[in-house]
Amino acid sequence: MTPDWIGVDWGTSNMRAWAMSADNRALAHAASDKGMGSLSPDAFEDALIAVISPWLSDGTTTQIIACGMVGARQGWMEAHYSPTPTVPIAASMITPPTRDTRIAVHIVPGVCQASPADVMRGEETQIAGFIAHSSRDGIVCLPGTHSKWVEIVDGRIVSFYTDMTGELFSLLSTHSVLRHSVTTDGWADGAFAQGVSDGFAAANPLPYLFGLRASSLLTGLSPETAKARLSGLLIGGELASRQELWADTKVSLIGAPRLSGLYAQALAIVGGNAEVLDADMMTLAGLAAARAVLEDRI
Amino acid sequence: MTPDWIGVDWGTSNMRAWAMSADNRALAHAASDKGMGSLSPDAFEDALIAVISPWLSDGTTTQIIACGMVGARQGWMEAHYSPTPTVPIAASMITPPTRDTRIAVHIVPGVCQASPADVMRGEETQIAGFIAHSSRDGIVCLPGTHSKWVEIVDGRIVSFYTDMTGELFSLLSTHSVLRHSVTTDGWADGAFAQGVSDGFAAANPLPYLFGLRASSLLTGLSPETAKARLSGLLIGGELASRQELWADTKVSLIGAPRLSGLYAQALAIVGGNAEVLDADMMTLAGLAAARAVLEDRI
Repeated sequence: MTPDWIGVDWGTSNMRAWAMSADNRALAHAASDKGMGSLSPDAFEDALIAVISPWLSDGTTTQIIACGMVGARQGWMEAHYSPTPTVPIAASMITPPTRDTRIAVHIVPGVCQASPADVMRGEETQIAGFIAHSSRDGIVCLPGTHSKWVEIVDGRIVSFYTDMTGELFSLLSTHSVLRHSVTTDGWADGAFAQGVSDGFAAANPLPYLFGLRASSLLTGLSPETAKARLSGLLIGGELASRQELWADTKVSLIGAPRLSGLYAQALAIVGGNAEVLDADMMTLAGLAAARAVLEDRI
Repeated sequence: MTPDWIGVDWGTSNMRAWAMSADNRALAHAASDKGMGSLSPDAFEDALIAVISPWLSDGTTTQIIACGMVGARQGWMEAHYSPTPTVPIAASMITPPTRDTRIAVHIVPGVCQASPADVMRGEETQIAGFIAHSSRDGIVCLPGTHSKWVEIVDGRIVSFYTDMTGELFSLLSTHSVLRHSVTTDGWADGAFAQGVSDGFAAANPLPYLFGLRASSLLTGLSPETAKARLSGLLIGGELASRQELWADTKVSLIGAPRLSGLYAQALAIVGGNAEVLDADMMTLAGLAAARAVLEDRI
């Protein structure tokens, strides 16, 4: 099996690669836990080859399109940000020097915004996939460690906003005093819904947080209920602060299936409207769009 | 030097003790880093004796009044919470059994509130000190890891609210992605003031957080500016959510001097009015009030 090109989504904690046909179908998939966070710049090439070598042929140079934190300042080689408004995949990909002559690596730049200051790296590729897939304007929300809310007009990212909701949930449930009250297993749908409503109504989840600890001490609030309520409070608060973006339009959600489902549920609770898109499909379509940008260039 | 009684403020991470005269003057002070968090229940007595033994006399039993996390479920012996509305120091102190006949230990109960669910442990003693000191109704704010906002009417705690502002600041600046952008040294007054205004106006600091990281990447926002802005955003957001409490009255601040000063500055920025009280003086006056409660009982 010899792919026409290879797409790579290289994040902080892991890397995923797809062997792609000329008509952009995924022929094979491979993954590694060697994320950007664990690699020094000179270790990226070996980490890549270890994953994709079965797909390489001597005497042939295969184009590799990579997106994500691989292009961060702490990554393989920095791919600068394209300032908004911008098409999601700018032509200014960078090409780190490689020793293995079977590969030519191109790293997709991120996107930045001057005011309010914001950056994304990796999401721009999924957004390119969304545009290729739906050919329409809209609001895309990419829930995750750092959720992105992205406004797309005429195929360009015109503005975007980042919420640290996922990271806050993780910090609060594993490092704060709430860790004693929040389990990592189990779930309670009703508590999630109540949390969403409360966090949304107050437009701020913070005043409610310590109440989870107090309820656990005073009334034995169960850890799964506390967990679902904490998640709901944080997502409800996020939806309140981004209400202008989604109030009058359908939100396209691109993220891990479980988390996207929670955002869809939360949006329905507060009067929003959402569709959940397949995140891997958006990533592949975005990498294919980046491949097309590259072919136009070379 | 033989004290009439001994007051102890025993928190999660350290313990402080004062040798007190019969007229409630502090004759001597001692401290230890053996906080509740590092002690099993059977280790509290030895930890206490190690600090206060110079003040004890054979053949005499000295009364010890202790407040704080020493009375938590994970502490020496649980002192149950008094439900609001309540005088700050309820008479229901508990007395853990001790082997050393030179001491009799009494632990002050915390205070709890049913709705919204909330708890305090330690702050009730400072509030008792405030009431003894000022003999008036009012709003007391005790900034810290878990800030308390307390409404006092006729010498009783009628309601209170906890914000996890201090813990959030610590988690965000040392464990989140913002740790790369926030220093632990240095400060920028202007950035603090701007943060307070922004967090207060938005009534929610969360949408601003990632902007600190982005500004650091895009425009080289200095780590001390980011730190002061983060602190301002969180305190400004807290003041917004507790505005009903302080809008029409002077707030009495009881906490670490630097932090109380920041809260006073922030309150002034958003149109509030505050006095900063000496936290140690409030603790001692509160322990003396607890001693008086105990004497009435025994």
